[in-house]
Amino acid sequence: MSLTPTTIGFDADDTLWQNEQFYRLTEDRFAELVADHAEGSDLKGRLLDVERRNLKLYGFGIKGFMLSMVETAIEVTGGKVPTTVIEKILAAGREMLAHPIEILPHVEETLDRLAGTYRMVLITKGDLFDQERKLAGSGLAKLFQAVEIVSEKNVETYRRIFDRHGDGPDRAVMVGNSLKSDIVPALEAGGWGVYIPHDLTWVFEHVEPPVDAPRFRQVAHLGELPELMSGLA
Amino acid sequence: MSLTPTTIGFDADDTLWQNEQFYRLTEDRFAELVADHAEGSDLKGRLLDVERRNLKLYGFGIKGFMLSMVETAIEVTGGKVPTTVIEKILAAGREMLAHPIEILPHVEETLDRLAGTYRMVLITKGDLFDQERKLAGSGLAKLFQAVEIVSEKNVETYRRIFDRHGDGPDRAVMVGNSLKSDIVPALEAGGWGVYIPHDLTWVFEHVEPPVDAPRFRQVAHLGELPELMSGLA
Repeated sequence: MSLTPTTIGFDADDTLWQNEQFYRLTEDRFAELVADHAEGSDLKGRLLDVERRNLKLYGFGIKGFMLSMVETAIEVTGGKVPTTVIEKILAAGREMLAHPIEILPHVEETLDRLAGTYRMVLITKGDLFDQERKLAGSGLAKLFQAVEIVSEKNVETYRRIFDRHGDGPDRAVMVGNSLKSDIVPALEAGGWGVYIPHDLTWVFEHVEPPVDAPRFRQVAHLGELPELMSGLA
Repeated sequence: MSLTPTTIGFDADDTLWQNEQFYRLTEDRFAELVADHAEGSDLKGRLLDVERRNLKLYGFGIKGFMLSMVETAIEVTGGKVPTTVIEKILAAGREMLAHPIEILPHVEETLDRLAGTYRMVLITKGDLFDQERKLAGSGLAKLFQAVEIVSEKNVETYRRIFDRHGDGPDRAVMVGNSLKSDIVPALEAGGWGVYIPHDLTWVFEHVEPPVDAPRFRQVAHLGELPELMSGLA
């Protein structure tokens, strides 16, 4: 049985389009808005603590981030934050939700080139409504045979998706910027994992690169994927 | 070609388990918390206006509802709402997100009974993360061949889902409590629509019953579905 890959799974946020940078900009804005009313520093660290605490209830996405910012603003100011600041925090979150999609370099031509040869599946984590908005705004939807928006990316997720839309995980390649969500579980499911580092990756997604895994690969940008693909077998 | 139905789609919120009542209770709590700080009345009406304004950005679900409550509390009080009230609003929303699932009467035995005869698909709208939590908590997941959590229920949604998981919409029955989301678009897609009214249905979901549609049916509760199903052909 040949093990040539037939199917490619693509992460979306920070693999196909910018995402994390909008969170960072909004965190900066949050810290700036709250700083005048809070004693002590490390407002962004406090925000991260609240996000971590809420993750099990809110999951991933901008709305949960907005709720955590409001909660943190009240908490770090001992309740003294003015409601005008809370209004501005909500406005900053709504701006994120309405922000135009910024597709990363090499993405469009690379996806176009691979679409004739491979079955391509978009596999993204987070808020269903917001991810659908981004996909629609990206203009890339037509290049994918399937789109899977999931609440968690684990071994079982990749098994199920590559069984459903491809020839099983051992004939599949997963491409993404998060070692924890895109690469490690895809490798564990039996697939290839192609890691494309992004300058900004959320701290919750940090793990060590599995450099010894025989099916682990790394490229500098998506434009290097077609050549890598033709070398896999 | 026989047109006996082979597939049943089930809505979840207020069809299989309670949902709207938790929103109503939280709205009451919201009005009670804000009333002391707001001039004028109809706080729930103002909340609904804000929800409607935000629907295009937030979609459906508890997190968006929480954000709209915070925004309304600031708006209706001219910014004078104390942050302790905002904290309590957030806590009320988190309680909704953590609330145990309350399965409606007749649901378990009816689904059990139908599962041997029909392909069953859960088709629910809203927040991916929260809907998955509710499905897991319900213990009903094993009865469904597929689960589709969607951001919008329209004609295209039902065509796609019943093509993928069944024998097309004309061999499918959609069961739910929302005429607008469950019944009308399923009928328009060519399927049957079985309406099970629930005491509480969100005002955004109200439309007139399509009583003249030949494939429209209505039952009082899910326990009447097996008999109705055996009469369809």
